[in-house]
Amino acid sequence: MLLNYRLILKIIAAVLVILGLSMIPPIILSFYYSESSIVFIIPAIILIASGLIILYINKPKSLDLKIRDGLLIVALCWIIASLFGSLPFIISGVIPGFADAIFESTSGFTTTGGSVLSDVESPPNGIIFWRSFTHWLGGMGILLLTIALLPSLGISGQRLIDAEASGPNIDKFTSKMSDSAKLIYIMYIGMTIVETVLLMLGGLDFFDSIIHAFGTVSTGGFSSYNNSIAHFDSIYVELVICIFMIMAGTNFNLYFVAIRSKFKNIFRDGEYRAYLMIIFGSTIVLTIQLLYFGPKNSFLESLRHSFFQAVSILSTTGYTTSDFNIWPTACKSIIFMLMFIGGSSSSASGAVKTVRVLVLLKLIRRGIYKRLHPTAVVPIKLNNKNVSSNSVSNITSFLFLYISLLLVSTLIVSLDQVDIMTAATAAAACLGNIGPGFEMVGPMSDYSFFSGPIKLYLSFLMIAGRLEIFTVLLLFTAKFWDPDR
Amino acid sequence: MLLNYRLILKIIAAVLVILGLSMIPPIILSFYYSESSIVFIIPAIILIASGLIILYINKPKSLDLKIRDGLLIVALCWIIASLFGSLPFIISGVIPGFADAIFESTSGFTTTGGSVLSDVESPPNGIIFWRSFTHWLGGMGILLLTIALLPSLGISGQRLIDAEASGPNIDKFTSKMSDSAKLIYIMYIGMTIVETVLLMLGGLDFFDSIIHAFGTVSTGGFSSYNNSIAHFDSIYVELVICIFMIMAGTNFNLYFVAIRSKFKNIFRDGEYRAYLMIIFGSTIVLTIQLLYFGPKNSFLESLRHSFFQAVSILSTTGYTTSDFNIWPTACKSIIFMLMFIGGSSSSASGAVKTVRVLVLLKLIRRGIYKRLHPTAVVPIKLNNKNVSSNSVSNITSFLFLYISLLLVSTLIVSLDQVDIMTAATAAAACLGNIGPGFEMVGPMSDYSFFSGPIKLYLSFLMIAGRLEIFTVLLLFTAKFWDPDR
Repeated sequence: MLLNYRLILKIIAAVLVILGLSMIPPIILSFYYSESSIVFIIPAIILIASGLIILYINKPKSLDLKIRDGLLIVALCWIIASLFGSLPFIISGVIPGFADAIFESTSGFTTTGGSVLSDVESPPNGIIFWRSFTHWLGGMGILLLTIALLPSLGISGQRLIDAEASGPNIDKFTSKMSDSAKLIYIMYIGMTIVETVLLMLGGLDFFDSIIHAFGTVSTGGFSSYNNSIAHFDSIYVELVICIFMIMAGTNFNLYFVAIRSKFKNIFRDGEYRAYLMIIFGSTIVLTIQLLYFGPKNSFLESLRHSFFQAVSILSTTGYTTSDFNIWPTACKSIIFMLMFIGGSSSSASGAVKTVRVLVLLKLIRRGIYKRLHPTAVVPIKLNNKNVSSNSVSNITSFLFLYISLLLVSTLIVSLDQVDIMTAATAAAACLGNIGPGFEMVGPMSDYSFFSGPIKLYLSFLMIAGRLEIFTVLLLFTAKFWDPDR
Repeated sequence: MLLNYRLILKIIAAVLVILGLSMIPPIILSFYYSESSIVFIIPAIILIASGLIILYINKPKSLDLKIRDGLLIVALCWIIASLFGSLPFIISGVIPGFADAIFESTSGFTTTGGSVLSDVESPPNGIIFWRSFTHWLGGMGILLLTIALLPSLGISGQRLIDAEASGPNIDKFTSKMSDSAKLIYIMYIGMTIVETVLLMLGGLDFFDSIIHAFGTVSTGGFSSYNNSIAHFDSIYVELVICIFMIMAGTNFNLYFVAIRSKFKNIFRDGEYRAYLMIIFGSTIVLTIQLLYFGPKNSFLESLRHSFFQAVSILSTTGYTTSDFNIWPTACKSIIFMLMFIGGSSSSASGAVKTVRVLVLLKLIRRGIYKRLHPTAVVPIKLNNKNVSSNSVSNITSFLFLYISLLLVSTLIVSLDQVDIMTAATAAAACLGNIGPGFEMVGPMSDYSFFSGPIKLYLSFLMIAGRLEIFTVLLLFTAKFWDPDR
């Protein structure tokens, strides 16, 4: 069975046009700041023109989308966006190197937030805006994908939604794709506007406010300042960003639960409770360790930085208020674990997602129980509903794949002769779409020192992580391209 | 249902007597070297006398062993051996501290091989012999347990033997427990004698030969020299030890296959092929990295150290010929992965065992396939036989438990304010019963600097790892002690 190449091409062409149109805001901004707008106008014209030409020439015979077509489209979308999104960086000369520009653009669209720029305060505002705008576009893309598109494509990891949903409204809801897409748009745009306003009330100018709103609601993490959120040194700003990071890492379906039934019903969701418990539990341990062994001494300072960092890493945003690379080892162990866990399913967040870790823990508990009762059949439950053995097996293979890819990637990144913590956390931070790691990729450093091939490999990891790995790995199997073999 | 405490006590008493009797060889050796033999005579008398008194007083009413009884016995055996095995260290004053002596003794019986002694060349020969003899006793114990005892106790992780067995002889064989126990004794003792003779032919004296034979066939790793196998600087000695390390990490059932059918049939076992492939694959990568980026420059030297280290870590022995802590990062990544994998099931080796990693990889492959065919039912196969979904689920929960325990232990060990690589590899080396890790617990260092509580925690990890974790964790559940709740 052949792929529906003409239909795939049509959708890709539409993506090219959208990408071109998305350069209009930075063009306007460049005019406002009297900067060179040509760096956006050239790629915008190329993208829109080529997209329209393809749309005009290419007429698909069938509009039937199979699973394989969908998977290929999704992977191509992120690859093409990352490739063409790098053009303004290259044309402007801000990031002249090919691999560097690809890395920065991929880091944007995948909402990773790792950068090759050691100084983000000197490039033109238009470039800094574009970089953060890619976060926002990528975050919206992934939300639409996970909630609205993937279930209909048969991507079974998302079938869990049935098991997770806290009320009967959800089932009815997710069946109407266009409806849910519309509501997600509204939620996402609304969150961006509200956060921008709240940050402006905190004394930030419009530019800084929107840059950090983009970086927050998408769980991206690009800032317009070299020392990230530490620049503002404001508890108000940190609290606003924290609240929105928590919201961006929350299952967006829960907002519909909150809207359509009672607000408190969102706490009936097991993943959400686990998500909040991880935040508060790790904040407590981080605070205690930081208070007794860290560079900070006051209790409130320790609590402040611990809470911010726990939320920032668990939601896979990556903003920082403190150099956690010099925190006590126990803190680094916790941060490393948070890097692995990530936020909720169906959120803008990355990494393995809280619900999978919850299933992992339930599998361990079942394993212990089964030593005493070897023949017992014990179902795994989430929100008082049995999780199908098919879902459990999908979660299991995903977790194994994630861990294996992390180990293999540590090996590959270490070929650049960096220390093992740098290699491991660079891989974890890119695969989990987080941003900062430890040592040479710590909060006060950047990814510029890696060689070109490793930068491209890390870009691949970001896309793989963003698309839950399987989608990307499938493209490397012979069966995908020739299923009748 | 109550535990059969009287029967448990009877078996424990028998273990006390055996432990007492096992101090006879070091007593003889102490006389031979004109050392103080009282350090063994006192504990031997205490152990034998208390064991005999209990055996005389305590008469079990029933000889019926349930699963829970068996699990408790197994855990108590290792705990009691580790506790009382530390007496010679304490009495002799070689390791005066309580936590230190417990650590050393546990490290011996669990065949870990990590030490708190920074100088192993100055203590009396009797003490050094006892330390290595605990390896040998522990290695024999675990072999008997995994092959002969555990299946009959219903420990289902070992049910895989059915799926793994390469010929029809095995099934017939494993059903006769006493028979297989006898054959394991013979194989294990035979391997020890042959290796001792081969090492003596290489110019080592009897003492050094038997110490290193003990350390090899049990996959322990205690040496009588501070710089381990590097002391001999002999390719012959390294090759002999390598061959026996590979043999000790091989599924002992395969030796019966080799004896009862054709030798080449052992290669029909998927786990054995994977085990050898991991050794050769990692040797190649280690050699290349070491050649270009390592401190060693000649190809043969690189190959020599790479092969030895790959075999030593994968088999979880822990002998070293080179300080791999200063090897290139890619080498350290590979060694870290080998630490996780471990040797074959039903061998003297530790860590998660090759067969489980094999199943993990097959689960990932199935996961990728299922993205294209979400409803397909694809069985996991080993040696052309389907692995039951129950076995797969046991393996899955074991792997998750192992990884989770590793992460939590890294956090706990890091409370001693060591760097994160020291914490992570100390946990991995103890849980996997390997011995050396990286940084402060690297091949040229020891575990003496840890605080008492952390030493005891690491001792707990060694026993947990030796008994495949579940057995130990079960004892901490309320359900184990009161299943009728």
